[in-house]
Amino acid sequence: MVQYPSKLGGRRQTGRASIQSESNFANRGMSFEKMLNETNSYYLTKGRAVIHKKPTPVQIVRVDYPQRSRAKIVEAYFRQASTTDYSGVYKGYYLDFEAKETRQKTGMPLKNFHAHQIDHMRQVLEQDGICFALLHFSTLQETFLLPAEALIQSFQENWKSLPIEFIREKGYSLSLGAFPSVPYLEIIEEHLIGGNSK
Amino acid sequence: MVQYPSKLGGRRQTGRASIQSESNFANRGMSFEKMLNETNSYYLTKGRAVIHKKPTPVQIVRVDYPQRSRAKIVEAYFRQASTTDYSGVYKGYYLDFEAKETRQKTGMPLKNFHAHQIDHMRQVLEQDGICFALLHFSTLQETFLLPAEALIQSFQENWKSLPIEFIREKGYSLSLGAFPSVPYLEIIEEHLIGGNSK
Repeated sequence: MVQYPSKLGGRRQTGRASIQSESNFANRGMSFEKMLNETNSYYLTKGRAVIHKKPTPVQIVRVDYPQRSRAKIVEAYFRQASTTDYSGVYKGYYLDFEAKETRQKTGMPLKNFHAHQIDHMRQVLEQDGICFALLHFSTLQETFLLPAEALIQSFQENWKSLPIEFIREKGYSLSLGAFPSVPYLEIIEEHLIGGNSK
Repeated sequence: MVQYPSKLGGRRQTGRASIQSESNFANRGMSFEKMLNETNSYYLTKGRAVIHKKPTPVQIVRVDYPQRSRAKIVEAYFRQASTTDYSGVYKGYYLDFEAKETRQKTGMPLKNFHAHQIDHMRQVLEQDGICFALLHFSTLQETFLLPAEALIQSFQENWKSLPIEFIREKGYSLSLGAFPSVPYLEIIEEHLIGGNSK
């Protein structure tokens, strides 16, 4: 159980929570998460891939059952995710990824990732799954697909942040569009399946 | 948004909810869900597959942020799942399944599955994912892996229940064990990948 940042935008967050909420939302315009949800729903509608965001893990402690109305959860807590947020299937391939957004210009703070998620990525790679992170720099207006191997390396070496130069070198730049907003399947098709990897 | 059965065992459930809770838990011994969780954790530890149960989808309405303590969710509701409960990767293959348990002896009530889940299964098959249901009959002490195609067929034809004879014919019988409790990977290896399908 952890102190988990709110996605509902509470005011009383401190320290770590505020860092995470900074990276979860764009300052203006559509959040990266929303763009990704749109993208996944576009891919689903077009029959191109089946990718879903996992529900936020919640530990439910108390539920009320008012007569004639639906069950109401009255006490629950956020739990730390043990996997990445997104997974699904594309042409028989298993895809698994995490998406993060920051306003910083020099790198992506690694506080945004938890050790459990990195372990999970390692396990997915061992099973020949396709695993990566989508990193959005809202101020720079740059977005990258970074293969999990590079992220795992940075974690092993205890970096505090993924420098933008490292991401540019090891990752693939994504041009955000309209339909879909975040066309990550093209990168996967060309570089992660197609064999043109860095 | 739906009236969702509680997994915490509330007393005031009515109608549909009580049917579902009947099928979610074994009367005695370990629930099928628990056996599956153990199985998945065994597979994970042994490096055989990475399969996780998705968190219960919850619509969070109100969160309190008490000073110096973790965020507390004080109003939330169960939402209907739009996908199946389990998914993951095995030797590069995408696996996706739902697990259901019943005390009935003649069949598995189809009320246990939602239209959204069946749509999801159809989409997964179109992407060449491996999709199925694990069905446990606690009174009969019989367990089956039923490929999604058979489940989709029964839904299209508006059946109320999957007759046990139909499951025996279209599905694969599983012998429950100890390590792992529900050895479903063997069925997948032999019949769903190996080409010995019914």
